[in-house]
Amino acid sequence: MSRIADEYVHNPSLAREELTEQQCVVQPCKEQGQGGGRPFIGHLFKGRRMKKRNKFIAVAGFSALLAWFGAGISLGAEQMSDMEFEKGKQIYFDRCSGCHGTLRKGATGPKITHEEMLNESMSDLEEVIYSGTDAGMPGWGQTGEMSKEDTALMARYIRLPAPVPPEMGLEKMKSSHKVFVAPDQRPAAPQHNRDIDNLFGVILRDVGKGAIIDGDTYEKVTVVNTGYASHIFRASKTGRYFYTIGRDGKVAMIDLYANPPQLVAEVKVCMDARSIDVSKYNGPLGNFDDKLAVVGCYWPPQMVIIDGQTLEPKKVVSTRSHTYDTNEYHPEPRVATIVASKFNPEWVIAIKETGLVWLVDYSDLKNLKLTQIETERFLHDGGYDATGRYLLIAANMRDKIMVVDTKEGNLAAAIETGNKPHPGRGANWNDPEYGPVSATTHLGEGLLTVYGSDPEGHPQHAWKILREVQTAGPGLFLKTHPNSNHIWTDTTLAKGEGENKRICVLKKDNIDAGANCFQVADHGKVVHFEYNKAGTEVWTAVWDRKGELLVFDDTVYPPKLKKRIVGDWLVTPTGKWNVYNTVHDIY
Amino acid sequence: MSRIADEYVHNPSLAREELTEQQCVVQPCKEQGQGGGRPFIGHLFKGRRMKKRNKFIAVAGFSALLAWFGAGISLGAEQMSDMEFEKGKQIYFDRCSGCHGTLRKGATGPKITHEEMLNESMSDLEEVIYSGTDAGMPGWGQTGEMSKEDTALMARYIRLPAPVPPEMGLEKMKSSHKVFVAPDQRPAAPQHNRDIDNLFGVILRDVGKGAIIDGDTYEKVTVVNTGYASHIFRASKTGRYFYTIGRDGKVAMIDLYANPPQLVAEVKVCMDARSIDVSKYNGPLGNFDDKLAVVGCYWPPQMVIIDGQTLEPKKVVSTRSHTYDTNEYHPEPRVATIVASKFNPEWVIAIKETGLVWLVDYSDLKNLKLTQIETERFLHDGGYDATGRYLLIAANMRDKIMVVDTKEGNLAAAIETGNKPHPGRGANWNDPEYGPVSATTHLGEGLLTVYGSDPEGHPQHAWKILREVQTAGPGLFLKTHPNSNHIWTDTTLAKGEGENKRICVLKKDNIDAGANCFQVADHGKVVHFEYNKAGTEVWTAVWDRKGELLVFDDTVYPPKLKKRIVGDWLVTPTGKWNVYNTVHDIY
Repeated sequence: MSRIADEYVHNPSLAREELTEQQCVVQPCKEQGQGGGRPFIGHLFKGRRMKKRNKFIAVAGFSALLAWFGAGISLGAEQMSDMEFEKGKQIYFDRCSGCHGTLRKGATGPKITHEEMLNESMSDLEEVIYSGTDAGMPGWGQTGEMSKEDTALMARYIRLPAPVPPEMGLEKMKSSHKVFVAPDQRPAAPQHNRDIDNLFGVILRDVGKGAIIDGDTYEKVTVVNTGYASHIFRASKTGRYFYTIGRDGKVAMIDLYANPPQLVAEVKVCMDARSIDVSKYNGPLGNFDDKLAVVGCYWPPQMVIIDGQTLEPKKVVSTRSHTYDTNEYHPEPRVATIVASKFNPEWVIAIKETGLVWLVDYSDLKNLKLTQIETERFLHDGGYDATGRYLLIAANMRDKIMVVDTKEGNLAAAIETGNKPHPGRGANWNDPEYGPVSATTHLGEGLLTVYGSDPEGHPQHAWKILREVQTAGPGLFLKTHPNSNHIWTDTTLAKGEGENKRICVLKKDNIDAGANCFQVADHGKVVHFEYNKAGTEVWTAVWDRKGELLVFDDTVYPPKLKKRIVGDWLVTPTGKWNVYNTVHDIY
Repeated sequence: MSRIADEYVHNPSLAREELTEQQCVVQPCKEQGQGGGRPFIGHLFKGRRMKKRNKFIAVAGFSALLAWFGAGISLGAEQMSDMEFEKGKQIYFDRCSGCHGTLRKGATGPKITHEEMLNESMSDLEEVIYSGTDAGMPGWGQTGEMSKEDTALMARYIRLPAPVPPEMGLEKMKSSHKVFVAPDQRPAAPQHNRDIDNLFGVILRDVGKGAIIDGDTYEKVTVVNTGYASHIFRASKTGRYFYTIGRDGKVAMIDLYANPPQLVAEVKVCMDARSIDVSKYNGPLGNFDDKLAVVGCYWPPQMVIIDGQTLEPKKVVSTRSHTYDTNEYHPEPRVATIVASKFNPEWVIAIKETGLVWLVDYSDLKNLKLTQIETERFLHDGGYDATGRYLLIAANMRDKIMVVDTKEGNLAAAIETGNKPHPGRGANWNDPEYGPVSATTHLGEGLLTVYGSDPEGHPQHAWKILREVQTAGPGLFLKTHPNSNHIWTDTTLAKGEGENKRICVLKKDNIDAGANCFQVADHGKVVHFEYNKAGTEVWTAVWDRKGELLVFDDTVYPPKLKKRIVGDWLVTPTGKWNVYNTVHDIY
């Protein structure tokens, strides 16, 4: 799950297609990550008795990588019809690849190559897939996502070599590129009277759409088609455009000047993707505002630089490289977080599996400059400190927040936090005692961890843990706003009855008083926050087929529900982004 | 063939193991490259009648990449025993991979994936392998390198998916690392009275050794074990050490202070390699003289940064990326030329298949900076202009010399030359009419092409072809020296009786008078030149099992044979490097 997003949570009622990495977040293999320097693989069967048997490779010594379009597979012991193989492939993509990787090399979940799986008995594999493990593997049968037949199929499927999805080069991308409204046909000024700065983009995940909602009137302004299960909305530097990136690698570009806002271009540049950002540098080296954008792919493992005005694909850069620490080649280093530097004409791009943060200089694509900063595996989600100089990014399987200095281009610090930090974009505020601080919530425990983030003004506190506050349960996101005295955290991962329908609010000027937590929904799961432009309201989502957006008055304590947005169109709302706050990295 | 080398030519008498890419150079597919913008693939059968048949993939839709250690292969129509498969793999590595690539995606030779090969009949394949094509494919049966049985085996072998050799990460490299004499155990000053600057390193290719020869006395000083079929000797910045890189990826480090010079460390960092260089920056950012070295691998496609004093492997950087022009992913971009920048703490590293020249900043390995300069495919050999600012590198399948500005980090120019330019390291001199010029010889024709290389002093001539002079036949290398009035070219690729035993000499002050060519050997092939330190003698090699080194007095015209170095130890001498000239990039 890419950090940029601040989103996603598993809803067991979702169709099979909708579940992938999120599932892993919800049941985040929490046993795996206990203790320092903890291993990340080989824990699939932790706590289970496993009969080891002689290693048997279907064709002796034959570790074929099957082609994605493979069919009619027969490799010694394992037999699978075309139809079964295709079904297995789809289920793997939907359920397993997010955590285990397309090539099954492991990331948030353990390595499950076919060689490893041939060491396990069919009955054990079926059992694990059906019931899960205490190491965090979801029980797909128990959650209702897979039938008995499906789990049996998947046990056989993962004993076959992982099929390799095809590559995707410029020509293929260009064939999907569509410009619905050319730049010179777009209006020079807004064609409506709404405050563009206070529009919200909301993901309607299961229907592959995005809603634009007026933050002043709470009206649904429009709903546009985006990619499959979009991951984020990212505002352009100028705030005129929203870009969305689908799980399917499809980029959609929405012009907020149009009345109503409309899709002006789209392109598919990956088969699996999570992140996107635009060029934001405007200085001595040129004005790059909205000139270019970059898409971070999961598969193929690459980043794609596209035109910021038309989405035309321009350049592809592979992320296949070596792990920063062991220097072993990794065939599938996926792009997690992307942010645009505020100092240089660069994107800051986190590569999950290698533990490298790349600075990609977009000022000269013919002579592309990269800086590959060694940080930690496996990079996930994060955002800037209040000054926009430091990227605070989770290496959550290492229980660390890594601090990347985007001005100097190096690693400034590593902060050991609680169990699997997951800051989303994070939260920044002024602590009455410690000055500027930042914070994260955790996937693995109900804990808010606060650390100093002002090495210039408060060097004695910088990158040190200053406060730890319990919340009502493990969650995905936190949020605040400079105009607010509050910090919000969700508890989406809490497992008790109703516990994932709660939110918690803390006061900046009295954090030690603890979190004020309360249930705000009677269905679905409550996830993700966004402030309005003024910093006076907080929006959160009830993620459900019959979804809701809840708007709270944040000027009172405890905050009070002010508006409940509902409607047939509001299907599985997840992430939401206010234009102004997204443009200005306010969180 | 990596450009750095200035070496190699095919000798039909060599054992099978010794022939790889060089064979392709000798019979350089010359029909493929005629005309501008010429295609580089699909010409295998040019000029032959081919029966197309329905595409048949052994297992439908199954394009498995076999593992390197595959055995007992049975894929539908194609059957091969373990022993046959291993033999085919070895022959492919020795004979075919240099031109066609390990994964058969094509480079100097056409693409020959198994899918392509299944479109051809067995009898046609056998015929082509045995007899060659007029598109430049060698006839391995006709040259005596393969028996009828071998060609039949290879016809079957290439209809199987290409096996993928294993990766090679830091741990595996370290297991091969040996320090024979630790840096603090090495002498502080030379332990002999020879002039280290005028020592020569000579590759003894077939025996996996290197000879150190005294350029003053012509004595063999010592013979040391290097890697298999070493590609180059590269002197350290200080001139104290020679580094050699074997075809097998083994680096050997020779201390010239020792008496006699001796191997002080070795390490194997690739399975297939061509190039190496050391760090040479000494300036405001630090003194990096001989601190680090970098090895360019063919397989795995990566570069490996090692300690310049001990050869300890430190960091691996993958070269797998996208072609500069079509932006398609390439699974096997091989490292060709490497030179150390004279301006920045950078190596200039040419990536053959992607057409990118990378500047790799070695001043901060934890925050590695790369600049990827778009040039042309497929990059091969080259060297500096006289100032050391511009790298002039051949994209020889595009009949171009690409000019990379290593100071500014961009492409300065592209020069269209003759048929397959092959400059080795090139040659630089002052032309009486045009000022500073550089030149290349060609694989595809007997032509010396001279172009201006002084954009500051003579911008009107810069990167323009100024002279074209016929030589006695296509060759591999040329050489000159600032103290000499002569330019030497070999004609190693000439096909007529005795023609590959000739050398040609031209006068800088009267190039238009043409080349003076004469036969200098009665056996083997004559290849590659090196000057002594003073620039008064030229050394060339008779590449044969019973090899010779010929030393010419270059102060007279035509030059006269001064010394013939022979000996049982002088087996298949190829490239040779004078310490001083190599340290100072004098050519």
